[in-house]
Amino acid sequence: MNAGPRTRTRDIARAAVRTELAQVAYELIRRDGFDRVTVTDLAAAAGVSRSTFLRYFGTKEDAVLGAVEAHGEQLADALRARPADEDDWTALRRSLDVVIGSYHQDPAEALATTRLIMSTPALCSRQREKQHSWRPLLVRALADRADPPHAVTVALSVKAAAALECLNIALDHWLVSEGESDLVGLLDEAFAALTLP
Amino acid sequence: MNAGPRTRTRDIARAAVRTELAQVAYELIRRDGFDRVTVTDLAAAAGVSRSTFLRYFGTKEDAVLGAVEAHGEQLADALRARPADEDDWTALRRSLDVVIGSYHQDPAEALATTRLIMSTPALCSRQREKQHSWRPLLVRALADRADPPHAVTVALSVKAAAALECLNIALDHWLVSEGESDLVGLLDEAFAALTLP
Repeated sequence: MNAGPRTRTRDIARAAVRTELAQVAYELIRRDGFDRVTVTDLAAAAGVSRSTFLRYFGTKEDAVLGAVEAHGEQLADALRARPADEDDWTALRRSLDVVIGSYHQDPAEALATTRLIMSTPALCSRQREKQHSWRPLLVRALADRADPPHAVTVALSVKAAAALECLNIALDHWLVSEGESDLVGLLDEAFAALTLP
Repeated sequence: MNAGPRTRTRDIARAAVRTELAQVAYELIRRDGFDRVTVTDLAAAAGVSRSTFLRYFGTKEDAVLGAVEAHGEQLADALRARPADEDDWTALRRSLDVVIGSYHQDPAEALATTRLIMSTPALCSRQREKQHSWRPLLVRALADRADPPHAVTVALSVKAAAALECLNIALDHWLVSEGESDLVGLLDEAFAALTLP
């Protein structure tokens, strides 16, 4: 059974509130510092009760990293959409364009967010956990695009994990360069380390 | 100035106590479950005060993962000891024999520990964090063994990160097989996914 219009409206409303709360949280935390801001402060700034805030985001970390979650599904979709005759490494590299595209849209903002995350241990750790949950999605997408589709293997897990590490390492180096280095070039360089001898 | 005999004695005593506390903590947690045991329980079981326990291990997680910490230094040392003409991937693969060697010494015990960690989200997450701190050590060791030694590059970071992911993935598959699969074979299979097209 399809979701009725009412459910759809509710979902849309919920997603909009979530985006708004994440935005307010992100701005307050950037202004005052992650450790100084409490969930109560975030809720107050957004004009909702603490319990409402917690229904949308269980923790401060999750409020800041709200957008990160969606990337796993986006990446898996991008991977499934790659040409069937493309090798796994190329398909993985091209799929990551989806993620780094969002950095190019507003580089100054992306740099500030990345700096905030990397300089806050709790955010860094939670981000790693979230990203870890992307891996099975990528592995499944890689297995599905094989011809014939096959089971999850050690090799596919390694490819998905290594591709995600390439993204992280490219972002680390991009952050160190204060956004001066070319993110696309860094990501290409990272992948080259895997596929060249 | 070298550390005097008194400092050495103190260090040895401290390390011995640490090992003992970790052992007691591990056994109690395995028996009663990670979530049911408190730091106060662990201290009582070891016959020390809570504050003494916390001087050795800041958290329950760290008490269980006490041994994990040392692996980063061991790996970096093993990497530096590899022949200069060995390529980075081979050197990384061979260095990991140090870690999986400890699994072969007592496979049943290693399997139980791995299962405990993987099935406890807090331990899993802390283990990932700890392992993340090994990476700069490996990158530095790779940079030093280059001829001439060179700066840390994207490529070296990717190699170190990918090698650690190979270890994790091999361990995941080994755990799923209930220790029946050959860990050495799984690790070789993981590395082959990186170095073969």
